[in-house]
Amino acid sequence: MDNHNISRHISGQFNAELEAIRTHVLAMGGLVERQLTDALRAMHNQDVELARHVIREDHKVNGMEVAIDEACTRIIAKRQPTASDLRLVMAIIKTITDLERIGDVADSIAKMALDNSSYSQQPFLVSLEALGQRAAKMLHDVLDAFARMDIDAAMKVYRKDDSLDREYEGILRQLMTYMMEDPRSIPNVLKVMWSARAIERVGDRCQNICEYIIYFVKGKDVRHIQKEELEKLLK
Amino acid sequence: MDNHNISRHISGQFNAELEAIRTHVLAMGGLVERQLTDALRAMHNQDVELARHVIREDHKVNGMEVAIDEACTRIIAKRQPTASDLRLVMAIIKTITDLERIGDVADSIAKMALDNSSYSQQPFLVSLEALGQRAAKMLHDVLDAFARMDIDAAMKVYRKDDSLDREYEGILRQLMTYMMEDPRSIPNVLKVMWSARAIERVGDRCQNICEYIIYFVKGKDVRHIQKEELEKLLK
Repeated sequence: MDNHNISRHISGQFNAELEAIRTHVLAMGGLVERQLTDALRAMHNQDVELARHVIREDHKVNGMEVAIDEACTRIIAKRQPTASDLRLVMAIIKTITDLERIGDVADSIAKMALDNSSYSQQPFLVSLEALGQRAAKMLHDVLDAFARMDIDAAMKVYRKDDSLDREYEGILRQLMTYMMEDPRSIPNVLKVMWSARAIERVGDRCQNICEYIIYFVKGKDVRHIQKEELEKLLK
Repeated sequence: MDNHNISRHISGQFNAELEAIRTHVLAMGGLVERQLTDALRAMHNQDVELARHVIREDHKVNGMEVAIDEACTRIIAKRQPTASDLRLVMAIIKTITDLERIGDVADSIAKMALDNSSYSQQPFLVSLEALGQRAAKMLHDVLDAFARMDIDAAMKVYRKDDSLDREYEGILRQLMTYMMEDPRSIPNVLKVMWSARAIERVGDRCQNICEYIIYFVKGKDVRHIQKEELEKLLK
């Protein structure tokens, strides 16, 4: 939240409530980020214990989504926010949906790590891990941008999705070649492919969060507009 | 909306505004349903013109999402709804996100239909079409449940997702066998696989909408709870 908005509620219960929700969102973001990096580490190191831990923790992410959603509805009913306060609440409601889905991605990578534990040392797990790290970095940076409601930082993250997509396409091609050369590997390679796709979707979800940040700061809904248009709009 | 809620706003501008939003959501739902069935028909009949039409129409779905979202924010700011009115607005905000994503699925099936037009007559396109029809029926029924805010109807849709999942698993196995028998087919079969997965996700999104209906009617957030628990809760 920028200083302008913080100062408007410098005192009062309302500000405290909004701040509490914001803090809760950042905590949820932190947990989701940890889940994602843990899942990637579990996959990379074939760490069954860590994979199980990620799967066990997923309900916490879900619980946070429900709790924050409830707090947002409560603050709307009780405080009747308008203008930028309302935009903040709306941005939060949408952000936590995307965060929860990224949590699901972590969960499914952890499940693949368990499932594939006999099928380790595949060269393609290395590239999957690199892709995952890149997505995790995007998540880290977008949470940082969200914490400061920083449009420039958000746009930096937004632009990174292109290279994530390219890396993903490269991995797909590589996995396809692998399957064609050794058809018996198909069932296992497919699992890696689903994970790669899920990771690629993390980038899209980070882009969504960038759009909510822009919506909050600029008061403009920029979903579904072309990237070039968006760049022009923010100049 | 049940009669109880309708009667509370029997007169007045507020009711008119809420009703207008609800009508807009149903129109969006109708468009998305048409997009999905058109995309499936385009795929099945290798109808390039129809596929192009679906792709062209996708921006309308996106535009409706943005417009409805804006109307919801406006009604919150202006009318300060509470209790079931606020729940309705919240349920709508979430529903249109899922509808928009189903619209994306239609768009991507249409793109596959264009892309695969040289690769027709494959036996697996038949099963994909059946899966798609099943998902489209779920969407139709959940929109109907939403129009009447009917929990029983919503639960009927909710329960159908299991059989959609089973059918999807069957198709996956079939496609995998196909790839193993003829590795040269892998790139094309993979495209079908992505579409199958996207269609399976339509079922999940219909389930989400069921949850919002329950949330509106019962005032309880039932996301992330087990199906058995949910059945018990609604008894």
